[in-house]
Amino acid sequence: MNPLINEMMQEALALAKEALENGEIPVGAVIVKNGEIVGRGRNKREEKQSALSHAEIEAIDDACKNLGSWRLDGCHMFVTLEPCPMCAGAIATARIERVYFGAFDPALGAAGSAINILEMKGAKVVDAFGGIMEAECAALLKEFFDKARSKN
Amino acid sequence: MNPLINEMMQEALALAKEALENGEIPVGAVIVKNGEIVGRGRNKREEKQSALSHAEIEAIDDACKNLGSWRLDGCHMFVTLEPCPMCAGAIATARIERVYFGAFDPALGAAGSAINILEMKGAKVVDAFGGIMEAECAALLKEFFDKARSKN
Repeated sequence: MNPLINEMMQEALALAKEALENGEIPVGAVIVKNGEIVGRGRNKREEKQSALSHAEIEAIDDACKNLGSWRLDGCHMFVTLEPCPMCAGAIATARIERVYFGAFDPALGAAGSAINILEMKGAKVVDAFGGIMEAECAALLKEFFDKARSKN
Repeated sequence: MNPLINEMMQEALALAKEALENGEIPVGAVIVKNGEIVGRGRNKREEKQSALSHAEIEAIDDACKNLGSWRLDGCHMFVTLEPCPMCAGAIATARIERVYFGAFDPALGAAGSAINILEMKGAKVVDAFGGIMEAECAALLKEFFDKARSKN
C-alpha cells in the first residue's frame, strides 16, 4: 500500500483519539492536496452542540478556509469511519475527488454500506476505498460504545 | 392550507431573494419550533467560499446555536428548494421532524426526486412535503440561471 495512505490515516486516527478523550464518538478526518494536509477535523457534536460537527464537516470547513475556495478539487479525504449521508453529500458537493475510510458503517454508511451518495447519477463521482486500517478505526469506536453501554 | 406554512415559506423566500441579490443561487430556509422561527439561513457558498454554506446548513447552524442543542427535536424546516444529499442528511441527523420545500430538484433532490435520504432504514424518518409555493420558489431559481446563462 502507498505509505502516504497509512500515514494520513494515522493522522485521522490521532484526531479520532482526541475526540474519544473529549467524550465524543471517535471519528477523525484529514483532507490532503498534493501530499500536504490542508484540513483537519474531528467529531465535536457534543462540545459544540452542533448537529453539523462531524469530523468530515469540520475538515471540509477547515480546508475551504485554508484554501480560500469552496471547491476542493484535487483533494483526498482520509476518515476513520464510512461517511454518513450528510458527510458523503458534503464530500461530493465540495468536489473532493477521493475518500479513504477505515471502519464500515452498515447502518448509516453512505459510501455503499447503507446507501451510495458518492456515485449519484448526474453528480460528480467520488472514488471511495473502505477498510483502510479498519481494525484500529473500529477498535476506537468499540471502546467508546462499550464505555457508553457500561454507564447505562 | 395551514396559514403558518405559507407564512414561513414567505420567510424562506425572503432569504432566497437576499441570496439572489448577493449573486448566490437563490435558496432560503427557516427552522420553526412551536410556531416561532429559531433558525434562518440562505445560500452563502460564494460569499463565504464554503462548500457547506447551503441555506439549510446555515439555518441548522443558527438553530443549534439559538437553542443550545444539536438536537432539533420538534422543529420543522421550510426551504425553497428540495434539499440536496448533504442537506437532507443534515436535517435527519439534527432530528428535524418535518421538511416543507418549494421547488423540486430532479437532478439532486434527496427528498425523493433523485434519491431519498429522509426515509433511510434504521434512521429516524423525516416527513417531507414538496411543492409548497413552488411557482414562486422556482421562478427565483429560473431568474438566477437565466442571468448566469446570458453572461456566458
